[in-house]
Amino acid sequence: MSLLTVGTVAFDAIETPFGKTDRIIGGAATYIALASSYFSKPINMVSVIGDDFPEDALDTLRQHGANTNGIQVRPGEKSFFWSGRYHNDMNTRDTLATELNVLADFDPKVPEAYRDCEFLMLGNLTPAVQMAVIDQIPNRPKLVVLDTMNFWMDTALDELKTVIAKTDVLTINDEEARQLSGEYSLVKAAQSILKMGPRHLVIKKGEHGALLFNEQSVFFAPALPLEVVFDPTGAGDSFAGGFIGYLASTRDISFENMKRAIIFGSAMASFCVEKFGTERLIGLTQDEIDDRVQDFIDLVQFDISLVNN
Amino acid sequence: MSLLTVGTVAFDAIETPFGKTDRIIGGAATYIALASSYFSKPINMVSVIGDDFPEDALDTLRQHGANTNGIQVRPGEKSFFWSGRYHNDMNTRDTLATELNVLADFDPKVPEAYRDCEFLMLGNLTPAVQMAVIDQIPNRPKLVVLDTMNFWMDTALDELKTVIAKTDVLTINDEEARQLSGEYSLVKAAQSILKMGPRHLVIKKGEHGALLFNEQSVFFAPALPLEVVFDPTGAGDSFAGGFIGYLASTRDISFENMKRAIIFGSAMASFCVEKFGTERLIGLTQDEIDDRVQDFIDLVQFDISLVNN
Repeated sequence: MSLLTVGTVAFDAIETPFGKTDRIIGGAATYIALASSYFSKPINMVSVIGDDFPEDALDTLRQHGANTNGIQVRPGEKSFFWSGRYHNDMNTRDTLATELNVLADFDPKVPEAYRDCEFLMLGNLTPAVQMAVIDQIPNRPKLVVLDTMNFWMDTALDELKTVIAKTDVLTINDEEARQLSGEYSLVKAAQSILKMGPRHLVIKKGEHGALLFNEQSVFFAPALPLEVVFDPTGAGDSFAGGFIGYLASTRDISFENMKRAIIFGSAMASFCVEKFGTERLIGLTQDEIDDRVQDFIDLVQFDISLVNN
Repeated sequence: MSLLTVGTVAFDAIETPFGKTDRIIGGAATYIALASSYFSKPINMVSVIGDDFPEDALDTLRQHGANTNGIQVRPGEKSFFWSGRYHNDMNTRDTLATELNVLADFDPKVPEAYRDCEFLMLGNLTPAVQMAVIDQIPNRPKLVVLDTMNFWMDTALDELKTVIAKTDVLTINDEEARQLSGEYSLVKAAQSILKMGPRHLVIKKGEHGALLFNEQSVFFAPALPLEVVFDPTGAGDSFAGGFIGYLASTRDISFENMKRAIIFGSAMASFCVEKFGTERLIGLTQDEIDDRVQDFIDLVQFDISLVNN
């Protein structure tokens, strides 16, 4: 059940209505690795950092079952840095700074030992980098999951569509699904996007939950209503990590099992937003995760018997 | 299982991105009566119209099991009229015209034969009118459901709070819950609003579903992802009608049964938005309703077995 993830390992500085942080550890691959670690180990990571990235942060990843020797370290260079400020609704944010640094010319190298991967998670990155990773995997993985964002739709749509055509599951948010398809209705958007190649589409709606589509079916998972959303940074990546981690642990990529994976992914996202950065994803217990998944079951389960159906 | 509803019986003129109507039949009590008629009959209606209101529209209500002799007819006066235009997202709209007409000095009279009601649905109206109806019911109903809107929070908050304190279930949308409570988090908003009197709160989130809260529990029902939302007018009233109609038919006001009622209400709302005005709510079959409820079951059901929970 080998799981490979590519994505950023980086610094973030975050302001929310509840407070602000100096630079803290972030990056898509960091959140994906931590969230998936509760389901499937090891997680082989491919990324790039500068020599400013703290060794103890890499230790934390390794303690959660990550192989970090696919993370290139560039001497004398700086790690990717993002800074943002969330608005009061916590659904919208302003980017205050983006310093690409080592990411500017990232040329991913998938170590020989990672190349037999069965589950491939392509975290949000330049589509060309995502494609370069796919091209280094000699045998097609059992499942390729792609996360991306509107920025690549604006700036690299053709390359993005080439990557999308190579993936099994695409995860984007509702506005991105509308932008990519040109359809306002999410049902029509999904039909259009599934024609681009992926057999499954996950539409993330933040506090409004997530939808899973294939050609025949649709499944809806709510987000847990939380008293406090402290910091949404990394929620989508935590979702993706829980999703692919659960699938990798069960090696079952049926629609029924993807439903479960969506719930586990939603549970990991619900933990993520409770504290700044990755803090809440470190050292979770199985009981905490089980209790959280039970909250999701309790939230949506109802019992209606239709006489004739 | 006597069900009494008070609310507007009116004309609407609607523009959506899909087309526009001349004046068509609308009003909260109209939608509530039609939607609840598939679960519980008769529906005793209290409202007011002018002599411009067509007899065949009243016939349609009667054919669906409504008693309309509690609808006052004011000779020489005009019925309430609302006109609005929906934006492309179908979630926001501009009011183009509001002509109160007979509603300006509506003094509701609950006929003697309606006063033993067990289930009372107070559709969106001036809080003072809603209170006047409550005051005419000698024995407290088994369940009082109140629908209202931000307009009354802006203009008649004290009267509204007096009515809220007398009700069992309040239904409002997410923005109204935030306005009424002063809390952004819907969980905190619900805790605050439940302290105002009602034992249950339904927060309607339109295309994002609905939440049901009591002091201990929360339940989430999705909205059905639809290819086309043709006209959202009346969706909230159809939801309320299905909700209270199902509760009246089962005479069970437990939280478990309210969950089912929310699903039936959501099903009625999903029909409502498929055509202009009340058109889709007229002459539904039991098979159509069962199939629609099955769609909701299929949309959210998943099967996770937690070993220790």
